[in-house]
Amino acid sequence: MQLTVVKVGGNIIDHKEKLSGFLKDFSMLEGHKVLVHGGGKIATDIGRKMGIEPAYINGRRITDGQTLDLVTMVYGGLINKKIVTELQSVGCNAIGLTGADGGILPAEKRPVKDIDYGYVGDVSSGQVNSTLLGDLLKLGLVPVLAPLTFDANGILNTNADTIAQEVAKAMSAAWDVSLIYCFEKKGVLADAGDDDSVISNISSAGFRGLVESRAVTGGMIPKLENALEAVRCGVHRVVIGHADDIAALCGGQAGTSVSC
Amino acid sequence: MQLTVVKVGGNIIDHKEKLSGFLKDFSMLEGHKVLVHGGGKIATDIGRKMGIEPAYINGRRITDGQTLDLVTMVYGGLINKKIVTELQSVGCNAIGLTGADGGILPAEKRPVKDIDYGYVGDVSSGQVNSTLLGDLLKLGLVPVLAPLTFDANGILNTNADTIAQEVAKAMSAAWDVSLIYCFEKKGVLADAGDDDSVISNISSAGFRGLVESRAVTGGMIPKLENALEAVRCGVHRVVIGHADDIAALCGGQAGTSVSC
Repeated sequence: MQLTVVKVGGNIIDHKEKLSGFLKDFSMLEGHKVLVHGGGKIATDIGRKMGIEPAYINGRRITDGQTLDLVTMVYGGLINKKIVTELQSVGCNAIGLTGADGGILPAEKRPVKDIDYGYVGDVSSGQVNSTLLGDLLKLGLVPVLAPLTFDANGILNTNADTIAQEVAKAMSAAWDVSLIYCFEKKGVLADAGDDDSVISNISSAGFRGLVESRAVTGGMIPKLENALEAVRCGVHRVVIGHADDIAALCGGQAGTSVSC
Repeated sequence: MQLTVVKVGGNIIDHKEKLSGFLKDFSMLEGHKVLVHGGGKIATDIGRKMGIEPAYINGRRITDGQTLDLVTMVYGGLINKKIVTELQSVGCNAIGLTGADGGILPAEKRPVKDIDYGYVGDVSSGQVNSTLLGDLLKLGLVPVLAPLTFDANGILNTNADTIAQEVAKAMSAAWDVSLIYCFEKKGVLADAGDDDSVISNISSAGFRGLVESRAVTGGMIPKLENALEAVRCGVHRVVIGHADDIAALCGGQAGTSVSC
């Protein structure tokens, strides 16, 4: 059976109208689907109101105890339920979940090496509860996953790209999975200054060349590494592109497709 | 099939150790079960930090827009996920949900008569998605419901006692349901000054007598009205008692049993 796993990031979530448009398009995608959402600036804004400043060590964002409570509230409560109610209002039977719910995404608190990232979870290898996710899909539900995992001590903060990747990989054992990363560009660009210079296909070998030529830099490198890893682990198709083009991305008519 | 619906209130949720003890006891209850939790003072505390003061009109608490966001975060995010992770850690496969998730609890925003309660939802009569709740139970999951419902415009704030009652009533069509209200007293007291004066059984007729004699007053009146309504609508058993005694309440050895 076919399954589409879509990841949408904070830049869309922070814009009420953009998010509404995106969710309407998402609701119309045919077949079984999962939405993984990121955080957005709203957590920082609400944190500031509560007197919680973003915490950094050596320039890296960390999740201390009060930040963990903040993201549990904002990602797992406010954002997740806004998405769920909006999907429900357009006839999409969404069910909002964190990785703790139904034990879907067990994780390990990231071990302290040079940096203590705090309450950050790395999804436990091979432990995604794909059976339950499959059961929920077969009930006609559309799981909406917040970027939170858990261990025996509680919730952990986890990158949404990674969750999308881990879910797509785990579901690939029994499903024909497409993984769609939506962001604010039309795809991976050959020329960062030209929004229309979308590279339509990237392979492992091509990726190395793009990094060496510095066409691909910064946050796009881990995003593509994640995508390639997903393809290597059995995900049928990974596409990166603009949230406005979700239907075309799923149909293979837009964005950057990543292959082995 | 048997189902136990347990409601636990804010007074337990506000105490970390009490809550842990309660959840351990709850996890050991045999058979299918649902937990409905209330809010607690933590929403008020977090609201204060954000500069949100509880809003009242004519002495009645109301849910304005910012309060709705606050309770969505705190009830649906922070409290719900703390309960879920704690249940997961003791081997209970909890899945945290609001009434919006899977469309479980459609509601109507309370119409404005003498007071505009704001974003408060009354569960739509006969609309509880008991089929989905049943499907989740049959998957071995333990639904943990936050006191939130929804309509076409978004989340709504709803009393947890009412949610427990509506869920118990709806599930009674196909399940043999016990509804257990846990609070900070051993049951309904004949003498408010004597914590051991628990009335073991209350019928409809007995209830009217207790109200007339002023043995039952204040918040206990709507609680008992809810309980009697549930029994009239097919709930097999309603018991009111202390959260410390959850196993005994379920076994019928403690608390106040309510019957027609």
